[in-house]
Amino acid sequence: MDLGSIVRDIPDFPKPGILFKDITTLLKNAQALSETITLLTASAEGLDITMVAGIESRGFIFGAAVAKELDVGFVPIRKPGKLPAKTISESYELEYGTDTVEMHADALSKKDRVLLIDDLLATGGTMKAAVKLVEKTGAEVSRIVFVIELTFLNGRDKLADYDVISLISY
Amino acid sequence: MDLGSIVRDIPDFPKPGILFKDITTLLKNAQALSETITLLTASAEGLDITMVAGIESRGFIFGAAVAKELDVGFVPIRKPGKLPAKTISESYELEYGTDTVEMHADALSKKDRVLLIDDLLATGGTMKAAVKLVEKTGAEVSRIVFVIELTFLNGRDKLADYDVISLISY
Repeated sequence: MDLGSIVRDIPDFPKPGILFKDITTLLKNAQALSETITLLTASAEGLDITMVAGIESRGFIFGAAVAKELDVGFVPIRKPGKLPAKTISESYELEYGTDTVEMHADALSKKDRVLLIDDLLATGGTMKAAVKLVEKTGAEVSRIVFVIELTFLNGRDKLADYDVISLISY
Repeated sequence: MDLGSIVRDIPDFPKPGILFKDITTLLKNAQALSETITLLTASAEGLDITMVAGIESRGFIFGAAVAKELDVGFVPIRKPGKLPAKTISESYELEYGTDTVEMHADALSKKDRVLLIDDLLATGGTMKAAVKLVEKTGAEVSRIVFVIELTFLNGRDKLADYDVISLISY
């Protein structure tokens, strides 16, 4: 199945000049959704993963499903102010300004081998911040997987020290 | 497994006087996560569900995993401005002001039999708006499932015309 052909292009979203990769057409296709989750799960084979962490909010869609398949737990990495218990946080640069991601301070331990999941690798800033959050707990980032990679944005450069896999490249 | 005992109580979040039910302790427990997804899936048995719809963002965590188990597609219901293609929307009353949920206009068709999923039934306003979105497309809401129900908020009253199941009641 050619998953890339099922993702829909939306011109000028969220602003003029951006060609947005819309995964909702993949999500609503039962076969494509199942195959995507199966491939993400297969990408973690042999790594002895103990926890999947996914980034709000499209990373949640795939993260928990893959955790179930791997028979491990799921850790949500969220936007600021959403997690109710004690958090750790990491800020990162945007084109204009900065953004922040948070994780519960007790979400992971030094023994954890983590699979990080998000839907899209663009410039890599959000994922790099997520990596730092995981490592602050002493856990290891064993692999990073994306459904889609926009190769022309070179986000992989920011994650050069890590093992990165994407299912669909543009 | 007593899932209710694995959910963590956080006092005074997001504001004083609220006892927040924190599901992250359930999510990070592999056995509890797996059992929750299995029970949500079992709750849809015999209904010939064709699509699962989940509400941003904790509904995304469970929704896609259940869709995978049922071998159907997943439709995200999102906060305003997040979905890139043509949307339909529904607003609902909050304690102070209103809020809105959106869904892609082409997400569902008249033939769809939908399982609606969210993590928590509180006052029921968000889910009622989600029900209206689904029905605007001509699709049928076959069942509504929640991981947690706060029975003292009587959210079930707003959904009295529908078949509602929750896994954990407080």
